[in-house]
Amino acid sequence: MERHFHHELKELKEDLLKMGGLVETAIHNAVSGLVSRDNQLADKTIKEDEKINTREILIENKCLQLLALQQPVAADLRFIVSALQIIKDLERMGDQAVNIAERALILNQEPPVKPFIDLPKMATLVESMVKDSLDAFVNRDVMKASNVCERDDQVDNYNEKIFHELLSIMIKDQATISRAVYLILIGRSLERIADHATNIAEDVIYMAEGRVIKHHAEEKGESTL
Amino acid sequence: MERHFHHELKELKEDLLKMGGLVETAIHNAVSGLVSRDNQLADKTIKEDEKINTREILIENKCLQLLALQQPVAADLRFIVSALQIIKDLERMGDQAVNIAERALILNQEPPVKPFIDLPKMATLVESMVKDSLDAFVNRDVMKASNVCERDDQVDNYNEKIFHELLSIMIKDQATISRAVYLILIGRSLERIADHATNIAEDVIYMAEGRVIKHHAEEKGESTL
Repeated sequence: MERHFHHELKELKEDLLKMGGLVETAIHNAVSGLVSRDNQLADKTIKEDEKINTREILIENKCLQLLALQQPVAADLRFIVSALQIIKDLERMGDQAVNIAERALILNQEPPVKPFIDLPKMATLVESMVKDSLDAFVNRDVMKASNVCERDDQVDNYNEKIFHELLSIMIKDQATISRAVYLILIGRSLERIADHATNIAEDVIYMAEGRVIKHHAEEKGESTL
Repeated sequence: MERHFHHELKELKEDLLKMGGLVETAIHNAVSGLVSRDNQLADKTIKEDEKINTREILIENKCLQLLALQQPVAADLRFIVSALQIIKDLERMGDQAVNIAERALILNQEPPVKPFIDLPKMATLVESMVKDSLDAFVNRDVMKASNVCERDDQVDNYNEKIFHELLSIMIKDQATISRAVYLILIGRSLERIADHATNIAEDVIYMAEGRVIKHHAEEKGESTL
């Protein structure tokens, strides 16, 4: 029974990493679809979101079964409950990737507002946060989790920089307004994905140290963008 | 033991409703702070977010204790696991209310872009969705939950209308650009809150009917705003 349970926990970890991999790919394809004006890549993110959703439901059911049949306590209980919350974060990251892809399809029909410089860098940073937050979770790696939380500030900085740059472009040339607003919303979507990854990382620290670091971001005054 | 467990479940329901009440107030004060240009109200939302965060942690701990000590199965297990997910939704609604309040404080320093017509209506609709989704959850009221899901489309319509209206105002008068972008982001925050309420409502239907209605929104093509 005990060995069986540990096998199932191991499987759960692998499932989470796989779901995370799908989300990373979704973000990557959505942003590449925009930057390289490749509608096929953007379409791929939209079509493959179903896979992420299906995986969420499969993992949720697995967690419920583990809770009901194995009645875990202490660390194992906390782990499974966290997994249930993390799959929601992953699913919503997938939705944000779809939002980005849908806006990319609109933007790709029109001339570019400006060359992309910060947005691809921001996207790469966000993808690394998604990967590392899940790695930190399955390996209970507090150092890696802290590192994810730190990167969230860099993402906020990118978002703010992109926001103000686009605002001044709009003011100079009103023909760019609607495209620039879409780009602002894409920046915002990336920032939301980073928030979800940060939630996961905070949970890792909470689990390991039994203390609550979440909500500290709000105390020190989050970006209003 | 059994009676004790049911008492604790009842308490959990009351806690959830109270947390929901705090979130409703936060949204209401943030939007009123904007519409009536009342910085004190907006400030209140920002200051009182801490209460929502504290309540999240308290309820989470209560749920973990119930899972560990009572080892519930079937419907009770599903209920507690759902509660754990719902408090995340509520906490993030609170964050969105703070975002609205912070933008209200910026906008209140400048002349209004236009009289508010749709935004207060949209906010009232969203607040009712928050309230009804939680009522539906604690009373396992599938009809009420379905009704919340239906209202989500109305919220999306408001958001889209506000978005396009502000876009054309910006194009006509570029002095309004930065204010209009903030208003678009406020509309987006309200829409996110409605999404969280819809998540809760979908969970109610899932619990009651054992079927998954979530992710249907994506299939029928969600708003890209």
